[in-house]
Formats: sequence, C-alpha cells, structure tokens
Amino acid sequence: MARLKRSGQRTLEPAGASRLVALARDLQRRRGRERRALFLAEGVRAVEEVIRAKVAVKGALVSPQLDKSPRGRALLRSLEPRGGELVRLSERDLAAIAGTDTPQGILVIAEVPPMTLSEVRLQSEARVLLLDAIQDPGNAGTMLRTSAALGAAAALALPGTVDLWNPKVVRGAMGAHFQLSALHCELAEVLAWLDDQHVDLWVMEGGGEPIHEAVPPPRLALAVGNEGAGVSQRLRQKASRRVAIPIEPRVESLNAAVAAGIALYALRARAAN
Amino acid sequence: MARLKRSGQRTLEPAGASRLVALARDLQRRRGRERRALFLAEGVRAVEEVIRAKVAVKGALVSPQLDKSPRGRALLRSLEPRGGELVRLSERDLAAIAGTDTPQGILVIAEVPPMTLSEVRLQSEARVLLLDAIQDPGNAGTMLRTSAALGAAAALALPGTVDLWNPKVVRGAMGAHFQLSALHCELAEVLAWLDDQHVDLWVMEGGGEPIHEAVPPPRLALAVGNEGAGVSQRLRQKASRRVAIPIEPRVESLNAAVAAGIALYALRARAAN
Repeated sequence: MARLKRSGQRTLEPAGASRLVALARDLQRRRGRERRALFLAEGVRAVEEVIRAKVAVKGALVSPQLDKSPRGRALLRSLEPRGGELVRLSERDLAAIAGTDTPQGILVIAEVPPMTLSEVRLQSEARVLLLDAIQDPGNAGTMLRTSAALGAAAALALPGTVDLWNPKVVRGAMGAHFQLSALHCELAEVLAWLDDQHVDLWVMEGGGEPIHEAVPPPRLALAVGNEGAGVSQRLRQKASRRVAIPIEPRVESLNAAVAAGIALYALRARAAN
Repeated sequence: MARLKRSGQRTLEPAGASRLVALARDLQRRRGRERRALFLAEGVRAVEEVIRAKVAVKGALVSPQLDKSPRGRALLRSLEPRGGELVRLSERDLAAIAGTDTPQGILVIAEVPPMTLSEVRLQSEARVLLLDAIQDPGNAGTMLRTSAALGAAAALALPGTVDLWNPKVVRGAMGAHFQLSALHCELAEVLAWLDDQHVDLWVMEGGGEPIHEAVPPPRLALAVGNEGAGVSQRLRQKASRRVAIPIEPRVESLNAAVAAGIALYALRARAAN
C-alpha cells in the first residue's frame, strides 16, 4: 500500500512505512493521541501552521495531489528540513486514513506541545475561554481560532469537550493551538488556578445580564457551555456573574462559536483594542 | 423501496410514494429547488421550524427512528393536520436521499416562501446582511441564524453564495429563513434597492477601520465576503465605509460566520439593544 520516494527526509523501508500508516490510524482515536502525545494535522493549511509554529514533526503521509499545486510543493519542501519520515500513498489510501473529508494530499504526525496549566502565564489584563462540554469539533476549532484572534491567553477544555487535538478541531482552529495555550483540564484544577491567578469567572447563560452592560475585570475567564445544555451547574455556582447576548425573543439561541466570538469581542481586554 | 402507512395525512399508492422520493432526490440539486420553488428540511429541529413558521408542506419522508423519541412522535402528529403526503422508508433509504449526515428519521418537502426584494419592509432603524460569495453551507446557515437572532431584517445572498435553500444551510439556520427575509439577489438589484430604501452600504475588510470606532447610520447593509477572497471589487467600490474587527497580528483571519456575528453585534440597531 505505501510507496516510498527519496527525499531530503529519512526514506522508509516498507516496514517503516506501514508503521507510520498504523501510527496515523491510531492517532484518529482520542486514546491513541493521549497515550502518545501526538496529533494529526490534515490539509495544506493545517500543516503550514504546524511548520510555522515549529512544532516537532514525526512524519508525513503524502499523496500525488500535493504535488499538483505550487503551494503544495512549497509545503513539501518546507517539511524536508524538519527531518520527519515521509510516506507516499495513493489519494485513496490517504483519504481512508484521514479524519477530515478532504486531506488535500497531506497528513502530518506531530507532537502535542508539552504544556500544563501551571505554566500558563497571564498579563495583568487577560482573557481565558472555558469550553464547557463543547461537543462539535467545528465549533471547538472555531472557538480556538477566535480566542487566538481576539487575544485570549488560553482556551481551556473542561470534561465533556471534544478532544482539542481531534483532526477536525486542529483544522478548524487554523493554527490557534500554537498561538495560545490550548489545554484539557479538570474543573477543580481550573477553579484552583483561576483563584490563584486572580482571574474572575463569568459564565454565558441565556437569562444572564446583557453583556454590553457588564464591565469586565482585568483578568477574566468566560465559560461557554454545551450547545444544548449550557454551562454545568458547578461552574454556574462558582461564577461571579452570568452574562448573555440579548437576542430576538423568537430566536432560541446563537451558535455556540458565534456566541463565544461576540462575548470575547464585547469583553476584550482594553489593551488589545 | 417505499412502504406506506395509514395516517391522518393522505396515504400514497406505491406510485405516489416513488414520485415523492424522486421529488426529494431532485430537491437535493439547486436547479431542482429553483425550478420547483421547493426545499427540503431535514432533521427534527429543522422540520419543527417549518411547522412553527406555518410554511406549506408538500410531503414528508419518515423512517422508524422518528417514532423512537417523544419529540419525534410529537413532530409526526403536528405534521398530520398540515395535509402533505407521507412516505415511510427504512433508515437506510432515508439516509441515501438526505443531504445532511443525520436526517434523524425525517425529511420534509416544503414550499419556499414567495418573497421578492421589493416586498422587504424596513423599520427606520434596520440592519441587512449581504453574503458575498459565501460558499460554505455551515457558515451561510450560521450567518442566517445570527442575523435573525440579532434582529437583522434581511440576509441577502449575492451571486457565488451557496444556495440558501440547500438542506445544510436550512438545518444550520435553525428556522432563520422564516424569521427574516432570506433571498438570492443580483448585485445590481441589491444596489438599486439599497439606494431606494436609503440604506448605507459598508463592507467588512481586513484593513478596514476598527469596527468599534464606526458609528452606524440608522439603516445599514453590511457585506461579508468569501472566506478566502473577501468582498468583491464592485461591492467595495460602492461601499461608503470599510470596517474590520481588529485581530492579533499573528492570526490571519476570523471565521466568516464569527466575523459576521461580531459585526452585527457591534453595529446593532440601538432599538434592538
């Protein structure tokens, strides 16, 4: 199944190629990613972000489609000095391994940047987004992307949230994983950290106070809840404020990623404006 | 393939059932929808919104999955007085006809509400969203949903935009199609209408003026462009202002639906706050 090609990278014997393919398959599963501290970046843009962020690359699976565009060929060249292993596959074999619909000829195996909550450094004014059981990978990826764009220091995923290193989340986030601290945390750990770092906690909630009337503190963590159920009861109880984006009464809700975006914009640290 | 069941609705002879199935298949194509002025609502929530909006229903395709939840059974009962035709299909046959991944046991054929741009009525303060070549159905659906939630009067799709009656757009919009005016228009038609209705035109653009510094006029149309290319040249030239959501320099852009959401929030008509 895997064909080899010489390149500046380490070329693989057939056994090595099969091993890399098996590894990529294993990394489609959350358990595989967690055990190995590796993730998959799929598609040209996602891989470009991995290269740009200087994340350690373990290997790449590439199909002929990549060679067809100048951008794809440039990406392949930029991968070479990174030293990972390279396996050439047919379009079809690559698509069968990929977790996203259109891998665009490339799938890279890379190391999850080692980072713990205690290492996250906050400025005197800071914003943190808490993803509370956000299940849709597209929404989670967009939330990370928006957090990075609007200057949040961290996006912390609470239990019940889709794996932030899921290939669909990585792709939707467009490199945000490497521009802010994106971490999975237990609730108790987050609450202790917020306390220790003097970060106020607000939650988004349908019946909350209109967000444009709320004046944010210097350091603020904002929790956005599950698309259906909202934020968890324990988080609500710990919050000092419940805020909402006022919407037309005939409309039930905003999309969770849009709500997070509007809230991060409305509560943005002044220094970032 | 289609099995029939008695209900309060008109029961179908096998020939009638096949005809409804063929019609549903035809409505997966944009041309089919445009020619017939019909669309498909797929999934429980989307169909609930069709019922709630009293949109004319021509028929329903239903699989056993729908009978398994109280919400599904309630939906089926609420469809009965609407008088359309009902066809029972296997799970698998329904999935093969559906355009979304999980039709949740129901697919309804309904009439596109007849509406033209000249019939759109605006308040003295009004917001209109222009979708300029938005290609992703998820983004388009979310933009409609956000427009309705934040009180926009209309969401107008310019050429190059995905069909607003695509089943994925209908599903993502969560009923917004029936809460505001959602229309496809030619650019010249929109420009003439904006002029006639005294609606100012602004476009979103990376290098534009920070949106929080811009004071919106009473009637404002905001154009959001294609995910890659931004708004079209002709639209830019006609705009009285170019505005942007300031983002961190290391981040390339916001997701188009999130950008539209933040902008609609930031430029909201005062009456809506």
